[in-house]
Amino acid sequence: MSTLFERHRAVLDKAIDACKQRYSWTAYPESPSSKIHGKEIPVQGKAAFDGLLGKPFTMDMPGTIGQVGEEISPFTETPLGITYPQVDVDTLFEAARAAQQEWSALEVDERVGVCLEILDRLGKPESLFVNAHATVHTAGQSFIMAFAGCGANALDRGLEALAYAYKAMKDVPETASWQRRFGAAPETRLDKRYRLIPRGTSVVITCATFPQWNGYPAILASLATGNPVVVKPHPKTTLPVALFVRTMREVLAENGHDPNLVTMAADTRDEPVTISLLHHPDTAIIDFTGGPQFGQWIEKNCPNALVYTETAGCNSVVIESSGNFEGMCDAIAHSLCQASAQMCTSVQNIFVPRDGIETDVGHKSFDDVCDELVAAVDRLIANPKQAAYLCGTLVDENIFSTIESMRTAAGVSVLRDSGPYQHPEFEKARTATPLMLKVDAGDMALYGKEHFGPISFVIACDDAEHALQRATEDVREHGAITSHVYSTDERFLERAENGYHRAGASLACNLTGMPINFAAAYSDFHVTGLNPAGNACLSDLAFVTNRFRIVQTKFPAVASAG
Amino acid sequence: MSTLFERHRAVLDKAIDACKQRYSWTAYPESPSSKIHGKEIPVQGKAAFDGLLGKPFTMDMPGTIGQVGEEISPFTETPLGITYPQVDVDTLFEAARAAQQEWSALEVDERVGVCLEILDRLGKPESLFVNAHATVHTAGQSFIMAFAGCGANALDRGLEALAYAYKAMKDVPETASWQRRFGAAPETRLDKRYRLIPRGTSVVITCATFPQWNGYPAILASLATGNPVVVKPHPKTTLPVALFVRTMREVLAENGHDPNLVTMAADTRDEPVTISLLHHPDTAIIDFTGGPQFGQWIEKNCPNALVYTETAGCNSVVIESSGNFEGMCDAIAHSLCQASAQMCTSVQNIFVPRDGIETDVGHKSFDDVCDELVAAVDRLIANPKQAAYLCGTLVDENIFSTIESMRTAAGVSVLRDSGPYQHPEFEKARTATPLMLKVDAGDMALYGKEHFGPISFVIACDDAEHALQRATEDVREHGAITSHVYSTDERFLERAENGYHRAGASLACNLTGMPINFAAAYSDFHVTGLNPAGNACLSDLAFVTNRFRIVQTKFPAVASAG
Repeated sequence: MSTLFERHRAVLDKAIDACKQRYSWTAYPESPSSKIHGKEIPVQGKAAFDGLLGKPFTMDMPGTIGQVGEEISPFTETPLGITYPQVDVDTLFEAARAAQQEWSALEVDERVGVCLEILDRLGKPESLFVNAHATVHTAGQSFIMAFAGCGANALDRGLEALAYAYKAMKDVPETASWQRRFGAAPETRLDKRYRLIPRGTSVVITCATFPQWNGYPAILASLATGNPVVVKPHPKTTLPVALFVRTMREVLAENGHDPNLVTMAADTRDEPVTISLLHHPDTAIIDFTGGPQFGQWIEKNCPNALVYTETAGCNSVVIESSGNFEGMCDAIAHSLCQASAQMCTSVQNIFVPRDGIETDVGHKSFDDVCDELVAAVDRLIANPKQAAYLCGTLVDENIFSTIESMRTAAGVSVLRDSGPYQHPEFEKARTATPLMLKVDAGDMALYGKEHFGPISFVIACDDAEHALQRATEDVREHGAITSHVYSTDERFLERAENGYHRAGASLACNLTGMPINFAAAYSDFHVTGLNPAGNACLSDLAFVTNRFRIVQTKFPAVASAG
Repeated sequence: MSTLFERHRAVLDKAIDACKQRYSWTAYPESPSSKIHGKEIPVQGKAAFDGLLGKPFTMDMPGTIGQVGEEISPFTETPLGITYPQVDVDTLFEAARAAQQEWSALEVDERVGVCLEILDRLGKPESLFVNAHATVHTAGQSFIMAFAGCGANALDRGLEALAYAYKAMKDVPETASWQRRFGAAPETRLDKRYRLIPRGTSVVITCATFPQWNGYPAILASLATGNPVVVKPHPKTTLPVALFVRTMREVLAENGHDPNLVTMAADTRDEPVTISLLHHPDTAIIDFTGGPQFGQWIEKNCPNALVYTETAGCNSVVIESSGNFEGMCDAIAHSLCQASAQMCTSVQNIFVPRDGIETDVGHKSFDDVCDELVAAVDRLIANPKQAAYLCGTLVDENIFSTIESMRTAAGVSVLRDSGPYQHPEFEKARTATPLMLKVDAGDMALYGKEHFGPISFVIACDDAEHALQRATEDVREHGAITSHVYSTDERFLERAENGYHRAGASLACNLTGMPINFAAAYSDFHVTGLNPAGNACLSDLAFVTNRFRIVQTKFPAVASAG
């Protein structure tokens, strides 16, 4: 029995139970508060981050042929000055392949034990603080968001995938006894043994905004099932990936395994390495998080690998009525602000009946709804400290052009203009408050695609049924990761549920008083795989069962009679 | 709770346990003996089959535009004269889609209950006898083979897939309670419900030789998870498929479900309908059994559907030594004869060291091994009744041309020539005894691909290591479904196991005294998915988990506060 497995077994058991019962649970600290971590560790974390700046990132990588790095902090608008190993892809893949054999021959518990140790190490405060600072200055998130969303929440997603992988592997017994008669012959007695074989090299492409949240599940699912993993970070957000790849390699090496089971292939926007990874003859598994166009290209053009994608869609809200008008507007406003609406769960399209809605505070006209949504956003970000905490910065300076082009697009009325907010700490922070536009349901060309960043539409519909119809049509055509409905009418809620489900989307009803973008590990099946926003789910059995295959040996149960 | 589910629950529970522990078990009668079934049922089964001949097969099918049928009995060489509905593909798919909604909204137990009833009905003697006669006069199997291999053994494969599908679906709870605090806000309490959504229309392409053995698992796996199924039978072997499709439709209709959940699209070799099924926009799942070339084409060219294939490979035997020389030769000979080596588990390539082998009866030269293999085949089929029982007939008259071209190919020595055997019952039976050829290991062009039918090669190798190397190289390049090794050397057996496993093949060691082609439901993972002989396994979790997806709804646990 693996020592690491024994050490972390209780955590794994709890994760399996949480997946089964789908309650709320976290195995890692979500809060950076010094009440929990003391005063020193946060300071050390910041110092560790500062110590990384302006120099090559220390990490051996097979096939290194140079150094690349072009990250710019969205908070300071200055280059981080960190470079990462640039690799020869064939050499990297050779090292990955060489690492596979010993790893894949291990007992399941041995591999899973190492994976649990990796998560545990990444979940230590010493890792979480530097990870958060690295995420802040690449993905552009606020510190508190980076600490929780790219720390505990992401690690929980990783542990969840690991729990599913463990369960799927343990479904296959190691041995069996088999006996039967064929006709009049003496009884045949066979012993059998079953062995799990990994698919082969797994390529994980992480995104610029939340590299850990999708990266951990993909990496852990592949690694636990025996596959070496090549991680390809986004050139804008390489540092957090380099940090966790280094930790993974350290844990592997410390425990006597080949660190090349997890490698990283950094690149630049001018010389991307992605296609050569995807089409490498060794590539057997691809996990992709990023834009829908490239994601769908991968789904169609990489038939020799298993492909798991999470991309993006037109997340919608349908408002039919409300029993808590202020709470609803606050909840939606929170989604429009949080992480500058750069989350895969951010709301973009808000469908409202042209004639208004009934609420707990009386009839509200379409314009009343617009006004209150705008007011709710304004309230949320009135205080710069609160704005900074909630919105963070823009990961990509091109979002400014999107905002500019949408604000002046034909057919829109600006309900709320976007502008910078003054960050209390970083003067040059790349900030933009929500741009809110009023459009008509017929203006599909405007709202019928994802506009990445803090851009949203309040869409005037004939009535609630029309709103539902338009929103679910968009799911089918453009995908959705989250969808919301607000209504006090149970029958409408039922129609909405059926409509969204039939369109292949999950639905949240009447959420208030919480961050509605939140997708809970162990409880929310994230991405349905039934609409264009991705083909895989974090996590379910389908996410893990095909990452390994089964071979067997059978032989006479008695002394060999060959 | 579904009544059907309750009725058959014990069978399902037993199947789940058998899958978990992988012992020998069957839920259905394997023997056609009148000691079990009495005298009347076999006679009625034959009469029922005779009653089908020479007329249109009675089965309503949506979109019927005509009748097609071109089956010829390999035993009588006369047309069966049965025609089947020829369908308009779009109309058929429309009917399938229409059927999906009610079916997919049912409780898991309800759907699985109907599936269990289908298997139970197909496993009744009344079905098994007519199914066996239909298989005899299309696939060309002997009656006893048709009864067991295409009856109980195939139903067991179906039940096994159903058990996995049930387990995978039950892994998702129906509801959950979830509560946590976000910051200083009051506790959020949500209720969640999870719903399983089928992928969509499932196309199952069955083969000419064993349509039930792969057909049942694919159909049951898709149907149980909520997908309508369109079955496309091979034009040579349509009748057994039509029979089970009719039974499935009857059971569905009797229990208040739309029979169009299972439909059939018959075609002819001149006007195949396959591509229009595969590329229909509704097609979400494809299960294919047939030739490797077409299988691999499907794997690469149908990116919009999940693809599960079982094709064929170069099944090999490596002989290093033997502790039971006669038993080994008998076992291999049995594989060369059984069903005229038209099984996906039939052996084709027998690798033997040029300098012979050590055995329990002394050293045997290469030629001695050849002689004894030939003698063992001759012994097995010396008696025409035994030959008929064992070999059956050729499903395809083109196999005669393959035999002819191989017997005269440059580089081969004929060890044993193929010829007809006199069938005791059917004078015109399309029979051919094994053609056994001696070749050199260097003659890869001769033996390095599948020759469908009773054609085998004894291949002279430098030594046992060379034999192993050649055999496992062939696995990688041409695939394998079964592989055998005979050796008394534990270290060689270990090398063989590792070698075959690394090549992505399962291995059987020193099997004697049993039909070595036998692949046991609930115990043998059939097809590894790691080599070119197919990408899917009968059955494992990976065969079922992606046939459905999960959507969810979450809402405040207290009275709706929208």
